[in-house]
Amino acid sequence: MIYFDSDYMSGAHPEVLQRLVATNAEQTVGYGMDTYTKRAVELIREACALPNARVQLLVGGTQTNATLIDALLARHEGVLAAETGHIAVHEAGAIEASGHKVLTLPHHHGKVQADEVAHYIEEFYRDETYEHMVAPGMLYISQPTEYGTIYSKRELEDLAEVCHKANIPLYVDGARLAYALAAEGNDLSLKELAALADVFYIGGTKVGALFGEAVVVRDPKRLPHLFPLVKQHGALLAKGRLLGLQFEALFTNNLYEQIGRKAVEQALRIREAFCAKGYAVEVPSPTNQQFFRLPNTVIDRLKEEVSFELWGPRGAEETVVRFVTGWSTTDEAVDQLITLL
Amino acid sequence: MIYFDSDYMSGAHPEVLQRLVATNAEQTVGYGMDTYTKRAVELIREACALPNARVQLLVGGTQTNATLIDALLARHEGVLAAETGHIAVHEAGAIEASGHKVLTLPHHHGKVQADEVAHYIEEFYRDETYEHMVAPGMLYISQPTEYGTIYSKRELEDLAEVCHKANIPLYVDGARLAYALAAEGNDLSLKELAALADVFYIGGTKVGALFGEAVVVRDPKRLPHLFPLVKQHGALLAKGRLLGLQFEALFTNNLYEQIGRKAVEQALRIREAFCAKGYAVEVPSPTNQQFFRLPNTVIDRLKEEVSFELWGPRGAEETVVRFVTGWSTTDEAVDQLITLL
Amino acid sequence: MIYFDSDYMSGAHPEVLQRLVATNAEQTVGYGMDTYTKRAVELIREACALPNARVQLLVGGTQTNATLIDALLARHEGVLAAETGHIAVHEAGAIEASGHKVLTLPHHHGKVQADEVAHYIEEFYRDETYEHMVAPGMLYISQPTEYGTIYSKRELEDLAEVCHKANIPLYVDGARLAYALAAEGNDLSLKELAALADVFYIGGTKVGALFGEAVVVRDPKRLPHLFPLVKQHGALLAKGRLLGLQFEALFTNNLYEQIGRKAVEQALRIREAFCAKGYAVEVPSPTNQQFFRLPNTVIDRLKEEVSFELWGPRGAEETVVRFVTGWSTTDEAVDQLITLL
Amino acid sequence: MIYFDSDYMSGAHPEVLQRLVATNAEQTVGYGMDTYTKRAVELIREACALPNARVQLLVGGTQTNATLIDALLARHEGVLAAETGHIAVHEAGAIEASGHKVLTLPHHHGKVQADEVAHYIEEFYRDETYEHMVAPGMLYISQPTEYGTIYSKRELEDLAEVCHKANIPLYVDGARLAYALAAEGNDLSLKELAALADVFYIGGTKVGALFGEAVVVRDPKRLPHLFPLVKQHGALLAKGRLLGLQFEALFTNNLYEQIGRKAVEQALRIREAFCAKGYAVEVPSPTNQQFFRLPNTVIDRLKEEVSFELWGPRGAEETVVRFVTGWSTTDEAVDQLITLL
Repeated sequence: MIYFDSDYMSGAHPEVLQRLVATNAEQTVGYGMDTYTKRAVELIREACALPNARVQLLVGGTQTNATLIDALLARHEGVLAAETGHIAVHEAGAIEASGHKVLTLPHHHGKVQADEVAHYIEEFYRDETYEHMVAPGMLYISQPTEYGTIYSKRELEDLAEVCHKANIPLYVDGARLAYALAAEGNDLSLKELAALADVFYIGGTKVGALFGEAVVVRDPKRLPHLFPLVKQHGALLAKGRLLGLQFEALFTNNLYEQIGRKAVEQALRIREAFCAKGYAVEVPSPTNQQFFRLPNTVIDRLKEEVSFELWGPRGAEETVVRFVTGWSTTDEAVDQLITLL
Repeated sequence: MIYFDSDYMSGAHPEVLQRLVATNAEQTVGYGMDTYTKRAVELIREACALPNARVQLLVGGTQTNATLIDALLARHEGVLAAETGHIAVHEAGAIEASGHKVLTLPHHHGKVQADEVAHYIEEFYRDETYEHMVAPGMLYISQPTEYGTIYSKRELEDLAEVCHKANIPLYVDGARLAYALAAEGNDLSLKELAALADVFYIGGTKVGALFGEAVVVRDPKRLPHLFPLVKQHGALLAKGRLLGLQFEALFTNNLYEQIGRKAVEQALRIREAFCAKGYAVEVPSPTNQQFFRLPNTVIDRLKEEVSFELWGPRGAEETVVRFVTGWSTTDEAVDQLITLL
Repeated sequence: MIYFDSDYMSGAHPEVLQRLVATNAEQTVGYGMDTYTKRAVELIREACALPNARVQLLVGGTQTNATLIDALLARHEGVLAAETGHIAVHEAGAIEASGHKVLTLPHHHGKVQADEVAHYIEEFYRDETYEHMVAPGMLYISQPTEYGTIYSKRELEDLAEVCHKANIPLYVDGARLAYALAAEGNDLSLKELAALADVFYIGGTKVGALFGEAVVVRDPKRLPHLFPLVKQHGALLAKGRLLGLQFEALFTNNLYEQIGRKAVEQALRIREAFCAKGYAVEVPSPTNQQFFRLPNTVIDRLKEEVSFELWGPRGAEETVVRFVTGWSTTDEAVDQLITLL
Repeated sequence: MIYFDSDYMSGAHPEVLQRLVATNAEQTVGYGMDTYTKRAVELIREACALPNARVQLLVGGTQTNATLIDALLARHEGVLAAETGHIAVHEAGAIEASGHKVLTLPHHHGKVQADEVAHYIEEFYRDETYEHMVAPGMLYISQPTEYGTIYSKRELEDLAEVCHKANIPLYVDGARLAYALAAEGNDLSLKELAALADVFYIGGTKVGALFGEAVVVRDPKRLPHLFPLVKQHGALLAKGRLLGLQFEALFTNNLYEQIGRKAVEQALRIREAFCAKGYAVEVPSPTNQQFFRLPNTVIDRLKEEVSFELWGPRGAEETVVRFVTGWSTTDEAVDQLITLL
């Protein structure tokens, strides 16, 4: 069986694992006060060209979104997000559990449009009863989105401008950021993203780490009390160095970039093969997630030797499916899949 | 420098690490649905003699307490705990953040007394205004406590009886459970504890795992919707098998037991050495944490070669200090410490 | 100036006020334990033909919705509601502030459809990742709706059946219930509604009281700890008898019914007059709220002598407006309005 | 039967009621935007000598405390309060329900001491693990306290200074403020209190209103988004003018002051009579609440004709009791009580 279900099916990239093994017996202080974490923070600041940023390492994505959104919002505010955003759908109400409403916007293959965000905010404040409603207090986007699509540099600039004018922070969920950076046609570098987003995170769990997400706060004064909030959200890892070591490895010798590039290459090979066979591409994704509309007969045949997910309910004759690559996707696995088509 | 600051300063026990390395390249489903986690669950059920228990693996202690206490309490209820309990002091308000009050009881070297718990509950319902106050909805204790002390079998039976009569669950925080099971004079086995506590957890982070806590719910019907709550609390690890693999290792060949036994032995050697030198034992702890009252001159001298924590503020002439052993404490380190006294 | 802005612009119906004045000097126990409240509870039980119901009197609508929804939902659950429902739009995030998501359904002039509710619940449980999403834990509807429309007996039976099958409670926000009971074409009596809804409230604030909403819980065992939750939500009135006295008055000599009937008559006279003048009815409302689409020139002319609200933003040439009647709307005011058309 | 149970047993002071009756038929806008509320706000600003203060009228005390404490605290902060404070004991967990811990201080007849507050804050920040604990984010006191005692001008200055140095707001719960202002030996005027407290409220419910509490925020910039938070907490009264009218009456012709003075006089007459009979005063209260330690035989005899509360559980031979006066306590009732002693 070959696997294309998701990008968190394997352990860690060998270079990441190697760091954990090599340092296992060492004794260090906890909670991220160790020197490995300090080193990782420096490497990330450098990669982002943000020498003064606050970098906080957390364990997982839902936890990161819940903690940071709670930290960024005032009590009377909610978070704007695409109706398909992870926080709006698949976090079991974690945002609401900390008291905040997710204010949904229409999506365009998973993306929000700057003009629609601006319109939402304008209409909100034009409504005479706006103080009876939840104020838009920040914008959440994901790069790449849950549909594998990416924001261009221009699109992100437009969103940042809308947020800036409205005086609300722009937050970018980068759970799969490496795959956006390496995406076909991407024109937005990490440094550029870091200059536009007020807060964002660099995903590790789906990009070669055992687990771990690195939050970057451009202006630390924005969140002076992040540490106790991380603890309050149950998001503080006792052996914090495990996060430091992994991000140190990911940001050494361009490993993070390489993982992204390789996985996207594999994904594009898969797309090419499906297209060559005449199957319909459901979403124009240039990243490591690919969506096709396949006849159910083809799905059933492939399922005998390939593991992958249906994207939504099974249709009468054809169904949308998702194929995901990651750091551990081998050339052989992709070759085998292509042969099976 | 030798380290006695805490029991979470090293990585994982070699046998635990070995499991992670050996399986690193495998691809499995996420969120704890994998076969390693299933195996770990079976091993824990067996060790507890609870073949039908619900076992849920989580990442860290504060997260576990916050999630389970939230799951166990109704909205109008609070959690009874010793005023020294971890949830009352050192979780940055995680319990309150999910809406619940910690109702504090006096402590006796970190322990609560069954008669005082019973008295609290009786007085509560005798108060005519009790519906204006927070109802005691569960009892939280830690075994061993934050002071290293342990509950005897009889004491736990008494607490369980008080809870049973009051129809509230008894919850045991076992972040350091191995060290209680191996404690000098302990008469309470894991199976006995499992039969008395309604919900408890077996700590991994402080007992040889990189991270991980195994929650045991004796009667799964008590918490039918635990999974979405775990997700909502940001406590669901994507690569859930990492938890499964670690607990599988800890519960194979009695590793969990061995780790506890060895660390307690080291702690008792340390205590003996301090006593032999005439230093005062501050808390009668039979586990891996030892508390002494030392002259500041001795503290300053030791600090040159040994790392350990002051327990509370520095006094004028003498101060209470804490020495902690763990799976990675070597005989050599203890010998060296003893020589330095 | 004559007023048609809303149904909470005046004080209390004279008979209600009279009760407050007559008893003002009396001394009674607080928090609703007094005999006036007991009497009001009995009258409401009788009117609902629910001799064993739990009746709890609260001060205002948002408070009532927030308290009861919090009381009814488990932590992992959200509340289904029309996207136009008061809780989804105009309660400043009160539902989310207590930790719960509002799960929105499409609306049809403010109403939800039983088949769409059923479909939502079915699709939810068909989704393999449903434990990562917020479970539908109750259904919220308003009778009449925010658009003045009403559910027929058959429609409510269908909704109740869907809820019953899904094992979730049906909650009815009756802030303006009197106006639904008296609505043109209404076939749903209070007793029938009370037999179908699991929890609902009878609005007083908009129907002749100074303030006050009467919550009816058909089966008290469903909410055994409502009292402390009311207190926790800051919704417990110290001088509880003020609520008891007002509802006693409203449910004596059919006052509640009369207020509803009179206000609806006035509203229908207004509608007839607008229709006769050829203005478009925007929403087919049979209750005390009427919505018309008027040329801006007409709006500007009327505004000189009549106070009423625009319903949404002002259009280029014409705009939707709302006219609301209430217990204090006089025949003269309506005559005057009609003359002005 | 004569009543001394509490100060919220009657309706409203006749002058307050008269205002409600006189304006009942008027139609005004809701939510406190009416001219009566504006007038009440001006009168309160004047009485406080704070021409720019933000004054917000709310319905009840628990609601007010919960809303304002939530508004004042950041997510990682808790509220310091005497262990006997209303928020710590008798609000059913309302503070925790909005996510905040109550950090308790020892009480001295219901009061906290400035040096103990300062010590708490110093020790907190001296603790190396303070970011794992709940930070003291504000100080809550009540004037008078739950024990009827009052803070002197000097004591309040000292508390304000401690808060100022620690950069946290001082909040005063004035549910019974009139009785402190009129207390025997009081040297703290309303204007002086208003100059020292950052936020406080002037209680109406217990001082002649049907209900109502007037929050005063000295510097409105401290709470720029109070309105939506009031709505979110379910604390926004639709017919807001009811609050405006009542406070307008209370702050016209010194009514608030008069009510306080009269009730305190009655209370002191009662105290004198008990003392003359040789009964022990339990708490040295100079306000409208008096606490005595009486033989149970006396209690039982009095109970036949007088209604009052036991203060805590009944003792074997004697028990502490509370006698409370209010605006509606008549001279005759006090005479009668004295005769019965």
